[in-house]
Amino acid sequence: MPRTPRRSRPSFNPTRPLSMLPMHTRTVFYISDGTGITAETFGNAILAQFDMRPRHVRLPFVDTVDKAHQAVRQVNHTAELEGRKPIIFTTLVNMDVLRVIQEGCKGMLMDMFGTFVRPLEQELGIKSLHRVGRFSDITRSKEYLDRIEAINFSLDHDDGQSHRDLEGADVILIGVSRSGKTPTSLYLAMQCGLKVANYPLIPEDFERRQLPPALMPYRKKIFGLTIQPERLSEIRNERRPNSRYADLANCRYEVNEAEAMMRRAGIRWLSTTTKSIEEIATTILQEVRPERLVY
Amino acid sequence: MPRTPRRSRPSFNPTRPLSMLPMHTRTVFYISDGTGITAETFGNAILAQFDMRPRHVRLPFVDTVDKAHQAVRQVNHTAELEGRKPIIFTTLVNMDVLRVIQEGCKGMLMDMFGTFVRPLEQELGIKSLHRVGRFSDITRSKEYLDRIEAINFSLDHDDGQSHRDLEGADVILIGVSRSGKTPTSLYLAMQCGLKVANYPLIPEDFERRQLPPALMPYRKKIFGLTIQPERLSEIRNERRPNSRYADLANCRYEVNEAEAMMRRAGIRWLSTTTKSIEEIATTILQEVRPERLVY
Repeated sequence: MPRTPRRSRPSFNPTRPLSMLPMHTRTVFYISDGTGITAETFGNAILAQFDMRPRHVRLPFVDTVDKAHQAVRQVNHTAELEGRKPIIFTTLVNMDVLRVIQEGCKGMLMDMFGTFVRPLEQELGIKSLHRVGRFSDITRSKEYLDRIEAINFSLDHDDGQSHRDLEGADVILIGVSRSGKTPTSLYLAMQCGLKVANYPLIPEDFERRQLPPALMPYRKKIFGLTIQPERLSEIRNERRPNSRYADLANCRYEVNEAEAMMRRAGIRWLSTTTKSIEEIATTILQEVRPERLVY
Repeated sequence: MPRTPRRSRPSFNPTRPLSMLPMHTRTVFYISDGTGITAETFGNAILAQFDMRPRHVRLPFVDTVDKAHQAVRQVNHTAELEGRKPIIFTTLVNMDVLRVIQEGCKGMLMDMFGTFVRPLEQELGIKSLHRVGRFSDITRSKEYLDRIEAINFSLDHDDGQSHRDLEGADVILIGVSRSGKTPTSLYLAMQCGLKVANYPLIPEDFERRQLPPALMPYRKKIFGLTIQPERLSEIRNERRPNSRYADLANCRYEVNEAEAMMRRAGIRWLSTTTKSIEEIATTILQEVRPERLVY
């Protein structure tokens, strides 16, 4: 018996049948001659304005005409598969590469550099450099080395591990365990090059009703994090279910004591309950205004 | 004798004399109803195309008309002080706030959302949401909680501290001490929500001529970092001057052994010598392609 005859296929030879694709598929490409991080950050912010969940494809290091042609093929293949224009965010400074993308891609091009660089050239009265990324050749720059040093400092001073060189800290975060100190410290180190120590407030401190003595000389650079007891209990329960540590009454006690202590000591603080790391970090920068800010 | 007569001052009453300002001063403002991180990331990338060192002022959380008027006053004061138009990057989704900035600011406005959101509305055939930031109300989202969990995982598995739950790691980084494993792990956790363990390759491993035994089952998700011995020696000398650890001959030995071991084991690796954390992370993502990618 003959095998089932093959159905006629669309000429574009999809890798999987169209019927298997989820409805309303749309792909967003981020094409960059660098890491693509800038393109993706910006593109994500733009797309957050739309009620859709596109597929994301980052094409980094597209820094030759050959790679540009590969990218065009990938974009156009997707366009045919999905039957809709892919959205393409580009941060390309190499004009030859950009031209290949502009001329070849069957998608909607959001050319972020081209759109803003030209008007700026006019206003500033200088020509742009067409250099790739802000990261190239910076591994020996002071800014970059400061950032790495800040990460190491913040790791060494995580969770009250060390009292050494608190003098050198730009910010000291305090708060009860699981109030968000560690992620915030690491974020400020990594993104802003700040040396951030963090200290847990523990029952001993509450009994003494005073800040940890090692921190006393540095009150000006201390910032407090607090959190709703209900949320804290949830978070701690994930770590140590049904423990006294996670118990709601205990969380209430710790948060109350910590807030009272910060109030008495005149420490600025904020509640992290509904705030992302980025929002917490931004607020701290506004309040503490550390003198040394790499970025 | 009469005091030196005051020079006639410009009418705008500067807070410090113009003569004290450095030459070619120009201020860049980042105005956002959220953290301003998107505006700053993008603005920095654009400005890297110009040979200038402007002053940066981030004005985050400008989410009311009142705060918009304050921002306008600050921008215009700067414009008068410096005698040049400030550059203003905005990511404002609140149209009332944006209008105040557009109509009031004596600066050059780079309105990032307005420029791209409208054309996208047309292409997508849907209206934009005008909601602020991508971070609001996400502290309870799965993505956000995964990110926090990834940071905790990466901290717990820093520097070979724990063999527990390597099964759960998305990526395992290996390399000699100070080859860049820790900052890269934390970056991948924080920005991409990936659980990254990292393991130092140490003299014992070189003598045994094998990968650390605990890692053997997870070869597929291992990625190696290496570094030029000269650069490694410099970095280690800052940490422990004139030690055997930092000695160039020892660094050469360790790097050679580590590279030979990775080659034998078929581990993918890259040299971090001139690469930023972002570039290292992006390359790893391209190579390892972890299945779970939050962003």
